[in-house]
Amino acid sequence: MRMYDIIAKKRDGKELSFEELEFFINGYCEGIIPDYQASALLMAMYLKGMTPKETADMTILMANSGDRIDLSSIKGIKVDKHSTGGVGDKVTLIIAPIVAACGVPVAKMSGRGLGHTGGTIDKLESIPGFRTSLSREEFISNVQQIGLCIAGQTSNLAPADKKLYALRDVTATVNSIPLIASSIMSKKIASGADKIVLDVKTGSGAFMKTLDESIALAKTMVEIGKRAGIETVAVITDMDIPLGNAIGNALEVKEALNTLKGRGPRDLETISFEIAARMLELAGKGDMEHCRNEVRNVVYDGSALKKFEAMVKRQGGDSEVVNNENILGKAEFTLDIVSDRSGYIESIKTDLLGVASMLLGAGRETKDCDIDHLAGIILHRKTGAKVEKGEVIATLHTNKEEKLKEAESILKEAYVISNRRPDTRSMILAYVNSTDVRKYADEI
Amino acid sequence: MRMYDIIAKKRDGKELSFEELEFFINGYCEGIIPDYQASALLMAMYLKGMTPKETADMTILMANSGDRIDLSSIKGIKVDKHSTGGVGDKVTLIIAPIVAACGVPVAKMSGRGLGHTGGTIDKLESIPGFRTSLSREEFISNVQQIGLCIAGQTSNLAPADKKLYALRDVTATVNSIPLIASSIMSKKIASGADKIVLDVKTGSGAFMKTLDESIALAKTMVEIGKRAGIETVAVITDMDIPLGNAIGNALEVKEALNTLKGRGPRDLETISFEIAARMLELAGKGDMEHCRNEVRNVVYDGSALKKFEAMVKRQGGDSEVVNNENILGKAEFTLDIVSDRSGYIESIKTDLLGVASMLLGAGRETKDCDIDHLAGIILHRKTGAKVEKGEVIATLHTNKEEKLKEAESILKEAYVISNRRPDTRSMILAYVNSTDVRKYADEI
Repeated sequence: MRMYDIIAKKRDGKELSFEELEFFINGYCEGIIPDYQASALLMAMYLKGMTPKETADMTILMANSGDRIDLSSIKGIKVDKHSTGGVGDKVTLIIAPIVAACGVPVAKMSGRGLGHTGGTIDKLESIPGFRTSLSREEFISNVQQIGLCIAGQTSNLAPADKKLYALRDVTATVNSIPLIASSIMSKKIASGADKIVLDVKTGSGAFMKTLDESIALAKTMVEIGKRAGIETVAVITDMDIPLGNAIGNALEVKEALNTLKGRGPRDLETISFEIAARMLELAGKGDMEHCRNEVRNVVYDGSALKKFEAMVKRQGGDSEVVNNENILGKAEFTLDIVSDRSGYIESIKTDLLGVASMLLGAGRETKDCDIDHLAGIILHRKTGAKVEKGEVIATLHTNKEEKLKEAESILKEAYVISNRRPDTRSMILAYVNSTDVRKYADEI
Repeated sequence: MRMYDIIAKKRDGKELSFEELEFFINGYCEGIIPDYQASALLMAMYLKGMTPKETADMTILMANSGDRIDLSSIKGIKVDKHSTGGVGDKVTLIIAPIVAACGVPVAKMSGRGLGHTGGTIDKLESIPGFRTSLSREEFISNVQQIGLCIAGQTSNLAPADKKLYALRDVTATVNSIPLIASSIMSKKIASGADKIVLDVKTGSGAFMKTLDESIALAKTMVEIGKRAGIETVAVITDMDIPLGNAIGNALEVKEALNTLKGRGPRDLETISFEIAARMLELAGKGDMEHCRNEVRNVVYDGSALKKFEAMVKRQGGDSEVVNNENILGKAEFTLDIVSDRSGYIESIKTDLLGVASMLLGAGRETKDCDIDHLAGIILHRKTGAKVEKGEVIATLHTNKEEKLKEAESILKEAYVISNRRPDTRSMILAYVNSTDVRKYADEI
């Protein structure tokens, strides 16, 4: 077999066999196939597309390129969750203790991540003492003991995906649905879960800007899961406005704790509860009506918060954080953003909030950058709200005073205020499983 | 400017500006842009195509990436000629002395080349003593003195093309009309001619298999020439059968000499005379009827052969070759191929003759291989001929006796003999200039 012929075949729009994809993925991983051949193939895949079989084959090959976590020693159906990422997305911090409190084990590996804020792991590390680098044994033992653990990904999780993603990132081949889907799913499959709930974000603050694109991505990932024997469903949720009111690592932990106490912002609660209920449904806990009730029960009776507290304690963190959020600390400088005019908030350019948040120190531009856990933004008013001139609509938090001015002007650009009251749209826009796509017109 | 954005723009099917192509070509040449970004762009160019302006811009940028030969000190209009390559193509050896004998200066740089036989330079080197590595001064002085010189290309001719071609060769991006056209034309433009005649081969022994593809390639190259201010025309000629009867370096020199003596095979004479006449026409020597007469005159009165002799003498070769072809030598082993049956030669798989010729030692597989100047094949019967069982249809020449058996079986596969007398097709199939495409039904 020759890489040349594989490139030519995909260039001509033909379907690659499992053996051909195996030759490519393994050869590239081992350094036998050079970057310049891999990037030519990726561009051909981008422009000619991939069949569902090719996409699933490539995903499984990437999942098998490194360690595959074995969760079989944990009793019960292990359901993983993944979000395609958005501004203010702290859903994992909320759903993991909820699902665990309902008796379904949560063994979750999470990433750090580049961009406007850190990943779940960075957010958890804003709790003093919280350890996320655990041995495989400790990870599994924690789940066995308390039903819940969130730890950093092992460095050898789907290394083929890691290497290919780095190449796609510099060759303009990221934005392809089969390539995105196989990248996400390869890591999920390698993480060892029995079933997966995907939270696919759609809108100005997400990678996928339109509902149709998001549904297409969701369908591709659900199909990969099916072919890999891992039942997968997807919830498409709104990212035209930031999720919740907090952006930034420690600020988001506070908001997650409030949500676990039943005092969270409505949009964040809606999405988190729905995803948690889907996870319970996949774990065989009953129909959705029953599962939604279960979720509400463990929040309102405090058992989800207790589960969070137990996880913090077990992973070395100061569990007093559950009662006293001051333990997380506070950034040295804050600045209130006031509205220049009266009217309605017609929209928020969510991606710009991400830019401002990064500027304040909450995210990392390259993987070696440090994160300022205390930096971020609190939004007091969001899309649809009526505001008066001079009213405080947001507050910036940072330890770099010199960044406040620039961040302020980005925020003023991000808030679009007019006389027109905008239409509202549902937070949960669609649901995709292997047989069905349902679009929701109204909140559910 | 970022290479990433240039790749993304072409990926999305948009036209790249001159400045963007300049950033790519110069950056790639200087090693600032890595292979993996260049190959992603090449695949996007392959699949999304290039506009005439992009193709011409890229060609000119590649032509300017190294030395551009200055022929201005040579008086008269310098007309270059290029063939896209085929089996048995020794046309340059014939037309160069013809055109020079008609008073039009020929300052020709030629390549070596991989494949079934060597290039023009390798063929000339089968003449004992013939030198093809000349200084720029000697090259120009020879043309000034005797109106004719054929020398090897300088190593710094269109280095961007050389580097890109090597990358295309391993990333399945060779077979794209704009990329082929710009590669050929960049070297021609850098070689300094005022005008260019292209011999675009079509058929089983050529790169372009169909007449329509060949015309498309010709039109693209003619358009590049126009945009670069270098008048270019193309003749599309048949390569469904080998050109002439000789394949192999010294064997082809003998056949070229016979053609200059008026005793060449009809197909070779037809094509060579037509291309020579087109060169004279471009040089302003009159209309085609007049130019065709001029060509015949310098062959029949011996002045073209004399010009060849003068070139051999001037470049250090044994000019006695013109009178005594034994000077070229003879391979140690020969083998006659006889027909297994009576019938008509319905077709010849020309590409297979190339394979056999390479096997016998006439070509080089990699650029470091040595060529056996004496190896090759003489075809006694070609497509359309009636043959009897046991009749000799071809003779193999080699110094590697052990290769004869395998070459014999390839030749038997290449000759398709049946009861059906095949239709004949013209040797010259079309003519393309900047305003017109003419297809020829009959020989002209």
